[in-house]
Amino acid sequence: MTRVMICGDLVWAHRECSDMFRGVADVVVMDSPNREHFLANLKPGGKYEGIVGLYRHNVSADYIGVFDQEIINALAPSVKWIAHNGAGYDQIDVAACKEKGITVSNTPGAVDDATATTALYLMISALRQYAKAERDVRSGLWKSQLKSGNAHDATGRTLAILGLGGIGFRLAELAHAFPMRIIYHNRRKVEGAPDWCEYFPTEKLDEFLAQADVLSVHVPLRKETEGFVSESMIRKLKKGSIIVNTARGKVIDEDAMIRALEDGHLGAVGLDVYPNEPEVNPKFFEFPNATLLPHMGTETCDSQKKMEIRALANLLDYLKKGKGSDIIPEHALLAKI
Amino acid sequence: MTRVMICGDLVWAHRECSDMFRGVADVVVMDSPNREHFLANLKPGGKYEGIVGLYRHNVSADYIGVFDQEIINALAPSVKWIAHNGAGYDQIDVAACKEKGITVSNTPGAVDDATATTALYLMISALRQYAKAERDVRSGLWKSQLKSGNAHDATGRTLAILGLGGIGFRLAELAHAFPMRIIYHNRRKVEGAPDWCEYFPTEKLDEFLAQADVLSVHVPLRKETEGFVSESMIRKLKKGSIIVNTARGKVIDEDAMIRALEDGHLGAVGLDVYPNEPEVNPKFFEFPNATLLPHMGTETCDSQKKMEIRALANLLDYLKKGKGSDIIPEHALLAKI
Repeated sequence: MTRVMICGDLVWAHRECSDMFRGVADVVVMDSPNREHFLANLKPGGKYEGIVGLYRHNVSADYIGVFDQEIINALAPSVKWIAHNGAGYDQIDVAACKEKGITVSNTPGAVDDATATTALYLMISALRQYAKAERDVRSGLWKSQLKSGNAHDATGRTLAILGLGGIGFRLAELAHAFPMRIIYHNRRKVEGAPDWCEYFPTEKLDEFLAQADVLSVHVPLRKETEGFVSESMIRKLKKGSIIVNTARGKVIDEDAMIRALEDGHLGAVGLDVYPNEPEVNPKFFEFPNATLLPHMGTETCDSQKKMEIRALANLLDYLKKGKGSDIIPEHALLAKI
Repeated sequence: MTRVMICGDLVWAHRECSDMFRGVADVVVMDSPNREHFLANLKPGGKYEGIVGLYRHNVSADYIGVFDQEIINALAPSVKWIAHNGAGYDQIDVAACKEKGITVSNTPGAVDDATATTALYLMISALRQYAKAERDVRSGLWKSQLKSGNAHDATGRTLAILGLGGIGFRLAELAHAFPMRIIYHNRRKVEGAPDWCEYFPTEKLDEFLAQADVLSVHVPLRKETEGFVSESMIRKLKKGSIIVNTARGKVIDEDAMIRALEDGHLGAVGLDVYPNEPEVNPKFFEFPNATLLPHMGTETCDSQKKMEIRALANLLDYLKKGKGSDIIPEHALLAKI
């Protein structure tokens, strides 16, 4: 019987998952405590021997580390499909996968609503000083240390969306309800985006930044987007503006962002992601105007289930039809062959 | 020259305020450290003698207490108009005002957006466990103590609005963007409310509660609404549902709400108001699923300015035309005479 592996968390019971694959593949659960154990068991005679595809969740990195070249090399040649649970797949060396003929699918769309809601929450908190307000009330200070002069309504302000993909557009819809003015920057204009999403191409990036009250980051982490929100970009934002990040920590130059908080150039930040998770730069804890979440973007049972079923369905489709959906752009050509 | 008094905070500089009243009235600022001093200075020879109207902000209660019968008696007969800055005017004994021929105006509408945004924030935080997540990240726990099984998307859930006035309707608009299903209960159906706001009259109140995933409270505090959200109402909500309160703490039976949190009947609460502000029942600090704000509903510089200008304009209109706008319902008849 064909074998597939569950590598990382499932909200679903494993029995439900086995039911889904019944008659198609046996499901083996990755329970290695560390990378050494994992790699050893991929070898002939090991319990993961001969798996042809796997479901992957980022939590597996806590045990065996990210899917770097070493792991990809060990998965090849038997593994042909990695069904990743998540929108961002920066923990997988997709170039190495391509070289070894492994196709990677992700779960776009399934995470849009939950992640955009997180960005909306962080934006409101940053605009209104609510993270500080919550800490004050719990330490018996009521609101004595807050000044309403530093707190702002969302309504009528300009939300600048960096990366109008699924999550960025979902945030645009939610913020448009206030209404906020919605502007966005992508490399290319998004086909079919509504008129109230104003497009700023690369040659107008400075203007885009200068008009933002809130800059919300929604670009995936790739080599070319690392540190994309640079010192120079941050300084082009108006004084007192806000940065929200629910994408990946490394997309922003963290030191530059901290300097801008220190000297008051930035009015507040709302962060769900950090460059070296689960570590958070302790400097952020000193800023009363920083709202900090521990990467909660997709942490709802609804979204987890949606993502997980989608990832498992992609794996099942590969087994049944030779190809699943949601193939990452880098592998689109590979899968066509 | 006619005299008016500023009683409580202004975001505006007092000079701007004096400019507004120039040629119409002299502006005297209430700076009494306590009630005794305040009452003494309302008497002949005192610095507040002869004021015919006043602007009032709740912060004045920190010094001279609420506007109870004693203060109203002392303001009469010279004061004819109290221009209150705020939507809720439960800190003013409006029956005593009526008896003494004092008309009270408030600032409805001006607070809708900021307060509804607070309710939206509290709802998201309660659904997603964000208050706990923020505390965890700051204490180095990352998200180890959180379970995504307890976190829910807003999208597709039912928001039950108790009191579809200006604030309740504004929240309905913001939550409809997800979309959430919006149901509401008022004594009477709201004329002109859109079709997607489903009305539940008093005889269907049980059904209204049973269908709610989130109950958001937006009724003013009056004698007949004190404790309106009772033990029996709370128990008619489904298990795991959420209560959000941005109205007034006393509208909910707090002990009943705490019991429902203790035994898990309520999944979470999001509170901006408490029965005895600025005191917060310390039991709430023990619940990981309680998001607590220190009455921040209208705390934005935008809203404060809108409210303040509206309250001052009501006072100015009274001086110039004998009548201002925004007269509270209890005084509507009084002002007609």
